Amino acid sequence: MVRTVDVAELVDRAREGQPRAVARLISLVEDGSPHLREVARALAPFTGNAQVVGLTGAPGVGKSTSTSALVSAYRERGRRVGVLAVDPTSPFSGGALLGDRVRMGEHATDPGVFIRSMATRGHLGGLSWATPQALRVLDAAGCDVVLIETVGVGQSEVEVVSLADTTVVLLAPGMGDGIQAAKAGILEIADVFVVNKADRDGADATARDLKHMISLGRRERTDVRWRPPVVKTVAARGEGVPDVLDAIDAHHAWLHERGELARRRARRAAGEIEAIALERLRSRFGDLRGGAAVDALADRVVAGELDPYAAADQLVDGVGA
Amino acid sequence: MVRTVDVAELVDRAREGQPRAVARLISLVEDGSPHLREVARALAPFTGNAQVVGLTGAPGVGKSTSTSALVSAYRERGRRVGVLAVDPTSPFSGGALLGDRVRMGEHATDPGVFIRSMATRGHLGGLSWATPQALRVLDAAGCDVVLIETVGVGQSEVEVVSLADTTVVLLAPGMGDGIQAAKAGILEIADVFVVNKADRDGADATARDLKHMISLGRRERTDVRWRPPVVKTVAARGEGVPDVLDAIDAHHAWLHERGELARRRARRAAGEIEAIALERLRSRFGDLRGGAAVDALADRVVAGELDPYAAADQLVDGVGA
Repeated sequence: MVRTVDVAELVDRAREGQPRAVARLISLVEDGSPHLREVARALAPFTGNAQVVGLTGAPGVGKSTSTSALVSAYRERGRRVGVLAVDPTSPFSGGALLGDRVRMGEHATDPGVFIRSMATRGHLGGLSWATPQALRVLDAAGCDVVLIETVGVGQSEVEVVSLADTTVVLLAPGMGDGIQAAKAGILEIADVFVVNKADRDGADATARDLKHMISLGRRERTDVRWRPPVVKTVAARGEGVPDVLDAIDAHHAWLHERGELARRRARRAAGEIEAIALERLRSRFGDLRGGAAVDALADRVVAGELDPYAAADQLVDGVGA
Repeated sequence: MVRTVDVAELVDRAREGQPRAVARLISLVEDGSPHLREVARALAPFTGNAQVVGLTGAPGVGKSTSTSALVSAYRERGRRVGVLAVDPTSPFSGGALLGDRVRMGEHATDPGVFIRSMATRGHLGGLSWATPQALRVLDAAGCDVVLIETVGVGQSEVEVVSLADTTVVLLAPGMGDGIQAAKAGILEIADVFVVNKADRDGADATARDLKHMISLGRRERTDVRWRPPVVKTVAARGEGVPDVLDAIDAHHAWLHERGELARRRARRAAGEIEAIALERLRSRFGDLRGGAAVDALADRVVAGELDPYAAADQLVDGVGA
């Protein structure tokens, strides 16, 4: 069955806050539907208002519980909230487990909350491809805040940072935070640190270690920089969560005052444009003689007849660039 | 001071196993030196012999200790080993901490071992860009085995899988392995599971849970597939490590018999060629009016005047593709 899509009507309904229209638009952008460009064009005038908050941390620190608690706290302040839960493992697994989302159930009937689990797509597409478009949908739908939740250490985290105005890094006591935190480079990406499960042994030590590392890390910088605060929470009971919101807002105000918010958003848009352009160019590689061009070049590289740079030259020539 | 580089001589010396020549060649490819293409061309005829093993796992499972123990075990079998330790956080931190590498000290004076910490580069470059070239250097230098060690969950792991013939996933007891393992999608990427720190409480339970998950995960597939073995080790004492080598070799033989090794390597080369071609195209975006083209487009997207797809069209047109 062919379903016709009236994009303009969907966007109107999403702007009125109809959850099904929002969900449908995200599906359209996530599936790379033929309507993708039409959706992007229709959304453009209504974007740029949402405050974008990234949440990240290692497995087991309580990310989902924290996201849910943040949503509750934002709702108490009358703010509309979108959540994009990104599962970076989906090139293989095809999506997030249910467990996480079940805990979000309390918000399922709240018309001021949109929650969406995103599958990331393929290799180079990744978070950089579909997530910014889903973010635009939530932004245009009138979300005051969009939380992007992602797991882990590495590339997905890097990409969350590239999308977010403010990045919150979650930790929990007793997970070998000290050296691991430094290894994971989280000192550099965090605008706000949250030590969750603060009712457990070692929470004070973890917070102290973090503050110490922050003081060391910042000393070498000569310019005036944001000093990330360390907030303790027990997200499962909502304790400390309003303080996290205050810290996020303080960082947002700090960025705005310095013109850095506008610069971050311009960089974000530039990254988004480049990612789309590259994806388009990449799809042309596959189109060259039905992908046979790449395969033939790969065989010659495997055989040692050609080096990969010379092969890449031929590929670039092949798409006429 | 301008240093002239005699690439042909460097490659000759690297093939004789001179560590400084190997290190210099890796630096040349990692730095994106002007000699990069010349190096790639000179290496091409001598590549394709090394067995490539990826090692990954969450922080704290003992990756560095396991890598070091695997190197020792390979050396006992008379095999020359290269190690590429990839730190996916380096877009921010600029490199791995020393601690990890210090533990490799016992191999520092062994002429049959090359160890290199790789910085990953930038956003789209990432592991996919410099690591395969460093792998080619070690391959041409006569390494029988190249171990690629990376931390974490997510994109960097995905990329290790794309490079390796065999991917070893390390776990440790008592890290909430069950559900977390499933979340991280490791069932799909692991060819061999290692439960390290097997002298700790819970090691048997972790191994049992893994085997159970493997049996569940595989049942839905209709084709004959490799069933990843679960090996227990105490890497710090070398216990179980020869079993890991046997499991890796068994997987390698299995791949080879089915023609899958050749297919994996062709896919790897294709990915490498595409990544280089895309990087070249991306550098042209930056060249367009000194990067001003991207910035001007980004400003219009931020202002809501243009959607990112329309902006990407203009960018692609700009590079003449």
